[in-house]
Amino acid sequence: MSIRIGILGYGNLGRGVECAVEANPDMELVAVFTRRDPASVKIWSQGVPVVSVKDVADWQDKIDVMILCGGSATDLPKQTPEYVKYFNVIDSFDTHARIPEHFADVDKAAKESGHLGIISVGWDPGLFSLARVYSNAILPDGKDYTFWGKGVSQGHSDAIRRIKGVKDAKQYTVPVESALEAVRSGSNPELTTREKHTRECFVVLEDGADAAYVENAIKTMPNYFDEYDTTVHFISEEELQRDHSGLAHGGFVIRSGATGHEKEHKHIIEFSLKLDSNPEFTTSVLVAYARAAYRLAKEGQTGCRTVLDIAPAYLCAQSGEELRAHLL
Amino acid sequence: MSIRIGILGYGNLGRGVECAVEANPDMELVAVFTRRDPASVKIWSQGVPVVSVKDVADWQDKIDVMILCGGSATDLPKQTPEYVKYFNVIDSFDTHARIPEHFADVDKAAKESGHLGIISVGWDPGLFSLARVYSNAILPDGKDYTFWGKGVSQGHSDAIRRIKGVKDAKQYTVPVESALEAVRSGSNPELTTREKHTRECFVVLEDGADAAYVENAIKTMPNYFDEYDTTVHFISEEELQRDHSGLAHGGFVIRSGATGHEKEHKHIIEFSLKLDSNPEFTTSVLVAYARAAYRLAKEGQTGCRTVLDIAPAYLCAQSGEELRAHLL
Repeated sequence: MSIRIGILGYGNLGRGVECAVEANPDMELVAVFTRRDPASVKIWSQGVPVVSVKDVADWQDKIDVMILCGGSATDLPKQTPEYVKYFNVIDSFDTHARIPEHFADVDKAAKESGHLGIISVGWDPGLFSLARVYSNAILPDGKDYTFWGKGVSQGHSDAIRRIKGVKDAKQYTVPVESALEAVRSGSNPELTTREKHTRECFVVLEDGADAAYVENAIKTMPNYFDEYDTTVHFISEEELQRDHSGLAHGGFVIRSGATGHEKEHKHIIEFSLKLDSNPEFTTSVLVAYARAAYRLAKEGQTGCRTVLDIAPAYLCAQSGEELRAHLL
Repeated sequence: MSIRIGILGYGNLGRGVECAVEANPDMELVAVFTRRDPASVKIWSQGVPVVSVKDVADWQDKIDVMILCGGSATDLPKQTPEYVKYFNVIDSFDTHARIPEHFADVDKAAKESGHLGIISVGWDPGLFSLARVYSNAILPDGKDYTFWGKGVSQGHSDAIRRIKGVKDAKQYTVPVESALEAVRSGSNPELTTREKHTRECFVVLEDGADAAYVENAIKTMPNYFDEYDTTVHFISEEELQRDHSGLAHGGFVIRSGATGHEKEHKHIIEFSLKLDSNPEFTTSVLVAYARAAYRLAKEGQTGCRTVLDIAPAYLCAQSGEELRAHLL
């Protein structure tokens, strides 16, 4: 019998989950839930109902795992504790600083309802967290480095769009190659924010806007840009559409550590991702953890979990015997 | 209270475990067990007894986890099922093809005695297995590549030493950079054995040995060298000692996969290691899994496990709260 998946929220992530469920033969998509008028939402899958989120409770016995595809800023802090009352859930909550609070909220609601919730699934937090935890456990004497990109930062693009005179914008976070090489050399450099990443901005101005004002407003913006070397390119709306609508991303997690009684032996553990589609990759991770949620819930487990709490074998469709014979 | 560790076998791995236990403040080394005359074994740690392996059963209540530091060819297939009768154990069994059989033997003995055994811990099998399993779970449509090196292959060095006229030898396995780049490009190349790695041999001849015969014997040796581009360098014993006594190693696990309804988006997941000391890194992994074994055994778990069965949080000294706040 297939694992019955529900999608709540049909944006980039919802569409990615739809794709990832299709790629996993042991799963089936049962329904897509939306806050919009269901009649207005056209989905890719044929024969799968689009349902108003108001009716979600009616689907309790028809869905094994609900994948929550809302945003971290305002949606998930409310949605995950709410929907874990009815379903086993997965979310991609990615506001690192608020994870402990979100974990507590989801854990309480999940234990009360007897469901399982896995939060903060994706690549950072998610796979990058795994890389950090494994490498810290193995090399207690060492230093962690995380680099992101090259890829679009939604938050920074939004910040540029809020500047007077900006019609549209995309901002790329770019890791500094020489900093990466210094880390890989094992020299454990102390790197400032400016030394690790640069920021590259592609901006479409409103008619008659002051380019010099906009460029200065970007480069001096506190928290977002002032600590970085930032390049601003003014382009046309057509160029933005044509050249900057991709969703590629990626990054690097490196731990540089030492062993030996005199710490004389250096070791580099590196994990990296190069992704054509950030949302499709993120949702591929969500769907693998949906399989784990299904299995853990079948074992009777309840409460909140993160990727750190889940043994890797739970993610794979193959049996333990198959994994030991072919992938170990 | 510290986790009480025992070491069984005091070669490169035993010495590495000793070092790794020192680097983990929540652990203490209780005793080193040897098949040799204990009086002949000098260990680095002060005040830690060296004990004959014949007396190992007397230490049942004094050791939480015994780390088995024997070889995979003949030691571990016997030792792990034997010593799991008395202790929770960790081994680094690395004969991939025989893992299912070894797992079954250890599982049976561990369940009978009520202990936990974690087998095949290290970097391959071990961390590389984790990289393969996570990336297969996330990208079901894709292709796996594993490259080893640059590093000394003990098995290949031994094979050269068995050739008539060879006094000593070291063999390096070297990944082919252009093959790595082809894989990273996402083109999913079909790579032959010859295209993935080269083999570089440093050989000390016996007096009067026939260099041409030895070179030919190496290059044509079935399984070990005949499918590779092999380079043979004849050097002096002093040069071998001076330039080739290091224990560096490393490698790369790459999964190249695709998502999207038309598989139009490519993704590369890469995990790599660059290690100054293969045995010290391997034993750092063993010791992290000893912490997991201790905790799982406290929960009452018994039987055999591999790295695939163990949630990453069990490996770290930090609590779940600390991990969520700082590493997730």
